[in-house]
Amino acid sequence: MSQALRVGLAGLGTVGGAVFRLLSEKAGMLAARAGRPIAVTAVCARDRMRDRGLDLGTVTWYGDPVAMARDADIDIFVEVMGGGDGPAAAAVEAALAAGRSVVTANKALLATRGVALARLAEASGATIGYEAAVAGGIPIIKTLREAVVGNRVSRVYGILNGTCNYILTRMEEGLSFQECLADAQRLGYAEADPTFDIEGHDSAHKLAILAALAFGTEIDTASIHLEGISSITPADLSAAEELGYRIKLLGVARRTESGIEQRVTPTMVPLVSAMAGIHGVLNAVAVDGDEVGEIMLVGPGAGGTATASAVVGDIVDIARGGPRPATFGQPAQTLTPYRAARMRAHEGGYYIRLSVFDRPGAFAAIARRMAEQSISLESIMQKDGHDRDGSDVRARRVILITHETTEAQIRRALDAIQEDGQIEGRPQMIRIEKP
Amino acid sequence: MSQALRVGLAGLGTVGGAVFRLLSEKAGMLAARAGRPIAVTAVCARDRMRDRGLDLGTVTWYGDPVAMARDADIDIFVEVMGGGDGPAAAAVEAALAAGRSVVTANKALLATRGVALARLAEASGATIGYEAAVAGGIPIIKTLREAVVGNRVSRVYGILNGTCNYILTRMEEGLSFQECLADAQRLGYAEADPTFDIEGHDSAHKLAILAALAFGTEIDTASIHLEGISSITPADLSAAEELGYRIKLLGVARRTESGIEQRVTPTMVPLVSAMAGIHGVLNAVAVDGDEVGEIMLVGPGAGGTATASAVVGDIVDIARGGPRPATFGQPAQTLTPYRAARMRAHEGGYYIRLSVFDRPGAFAAIARRMAEQSISLESIMQKDGHDRDGSDVRARRVILITHETTEAQIRRALDAIQEDGQIEGRPQMIRIEKP
Repeated sequence: MSQALRVGLAGLGTVGGAVFRLLSEKAGMLAARAGRPIAVTAVCARDRMRDRGLDLGTVTWYGDPVAMARDADIDIFVEVMGGGDGPAAAAVEAALAAGRSVVTANKALLATRGVALARLAEASGATIGYEAAVAGGIPIIKTLREAVVGNRVSRVYGILNGTCNYILTRMEEGLSFQECLADAQRLGYAEADPTFDIEGHDSAHKLAILAALAFGTEIDTASIHLEGISSITPADLSAAEELGYRIKLLGVARRTESGIEQRVTPTMVPLVSAMAGIHGVLNAVAVDGDEVGEIMLVGPGAGGTATASAVVGDIVDIARGGPRPATFGQPAQTLTPYRAARMRAHEGGYYIRLSVFDRPGAFAAIARRMAEQSISLESIMQKDGHDRDGSDVRARRVILITHETTEAQIRRALDAIQEDGQIEGRPQMIRIEKP
Repeated sequence: MSQALRVGLAGLGTVGGAVFRLLSEKAGMLAARAGRPIAVTAVCARDRMRDRGLDLGTVTWYGDPVAMARDADIDIFVEVMGGGDGPAAAAVEAALAAGRSVVTANKALLATRGVALARLAEASGATIGYEAAVAGGIPIIKTLREAVVGNRVSRVYGILNGTCNYILTRMEEGLSFQECLADAQRLGYAEADPTFDIEGHDSAHKLAILAALAFGTEIDTASIHLEGISSITPADLSAAEELGYRIKLLGVARRTESGIEQRVTPTMVPLVSAMAGIHGVLNAVAVDGDEVGEIMLVGPGAGGTATASAVVGDIVDIARGGPRPATFGQPAQTLTPYRAARMRAHEGGYYIRLSVFDRPGAFAAIARRMAEQSISLESIMQKDGHDRDGSDVRARRVILITHETTEAQIRRALDAIQEDGQIEGRPQMIRIEKP
């Protein structure tokens, strides 16, 4: 059997601890599968004294990850410290510059510096494994980079944030957003400050990485159109279900004629679609390829052991030896500059919820505004009585599902309806995405 | 860029034609992704004169696949002829013996001779890619062999036959098995003789391959417990739904203390599980790993282009160069002999449907037989009136869902109930599988 692969592990938190334990407990199994032993020979963390329940007896300790990346006797640098900037970035750059391959779980790092790191890796002959950075234990990077390599991908989309999917799943029981968020916080699914998750930033990081890989473009996280889930009400969820849909926070990246569309928004998916069947903290990612059709991967998007499983998969790929695929599936210099599709050019169906004043002509005025923009309606649902969400008793809830139209047309119609003064408050607008 | 990878393609039917077209039309894209050109330099099919709409001008034609595997100037032998025996097997063996790597879509070949082929490949330094052999375009082989390599897998299961899933999905509309089968035949989803699909043999081939890979054992297709879907009635489907379940034809392979359990049977899955949300001709495979938890892959299980996508993924993996994982994830000589768990030792919940004669004491007798076997019931549903399926008007349909018990206990209870003479016909028994 060949020489052992020497691993330097930077970060000994939940994920790092799980990686260390997995590599030691399953050393025999992994050696058989990889064709050579894999051994952690160096670790790096801030506090050397803390008891982590790990037997670190034989490994070399580093306080500075950059020093470990540059100087340690290691073949591969595993970064599970986190943070898009600062020591994690500096250490990964140092490792790649030294020709050492990197495995990282750091989505912020990839989303902000992915292409620069890919160039650095290619210049020095190193490779970057980042399966753990997107959707935890789901092998979506391997699927895009290796399995569907014979496809031109037209769309990649999915449920990329388990916190939001948990909240939306619970809201289907009729609970409010605030109640479900509090619940998610109590269970440890949501942070004390949940903004990063519920406003879609976490999903956006992952989507930007997937889009680069799927379409062979440079990464552009900043151009992602973002809408969070805090405006979704139980009334939206129940109306959606009545009309044959379910609401999910989806990240969607699509190749269009005018460029790449990237958005993270609450989205309606057909109840009969597999995506609608993803409940709770699970993640799911679907890929549309011109040869394979649509394939979807489902699994835990977070958690120490699920993330460690992905990290170890990348380590074993490198341990087996031989060339690995380029970071984003093709040489970094061949990635095309990112060209954003204008969000107003988005095409699709829409769900519209309006609180319409209960007076003669109100509905006719709304229908006219839709017709002026050539928007045709798939279904109309009007509920008697006042709005459960606390709107005025004089207003009735009207739900419209449109046939395919453009974002520009919908926005013009809704602006005109708002100006007409026939509705209370702002219209709710949710895009529809079909498999 | 390195030298071109020379491909010999044996079989020019639906899949072979799609592979040929994909490799020529996307030659530039594939070369960028693989790091070298990929060119079909030899093909083999029976009828040279047939117009397949392919430009075969520059390739060398062979009538005999064994001759091509042995003699042609190729680096890799792609077998999409089909058939577990005969020319396909002989040609694959010849290619491997000559040290040429093989990519195949042939599940019958793998299920009957997989381990022998793996030994042959290892002896000559060749590798075998067979992503296309199981669940078409779904990258389940790559997932098991590479992505979850840090896991000990406890279970792999799924919907492995699109024909059966289409029939069961349609039956949920209240149609009979025979009506839905006729429909599937009209649409080209089912063969004129559908036995191989509906009795579970096709799923069994795929399950046997997955089990070997998941558990590191030799393949044993013959020991798979098989039950087809022809005994399932619309009444079973609607009762299942009322009780919170859906019926799928599942292939399930599970590691138990007494050995490996492998079965292909109609199975109830919870309505809220992602597996229940797989409708129509789709396939889905779930893997339970001790680190990652459960991940599931969904997609088209058949079709020329989906299968070609998987074949080309394998070709590109080989084109990139370097060592590939062993055929079944670890060296063939380390695979353990298959040890079958006894089906009677199966543990799980059960759905039981009985036509109970409408007379005093009948239900009490049934309940006593369950109690004698220490079987406790999760739910009991009795419908008034006669059985829609045409049983006697004096009999009432009784549905039982049991808590976890063993197959031996259930069989003893059902045998005793049958002997008591309180029921009409045979009991229907369907196993429950939870995520």
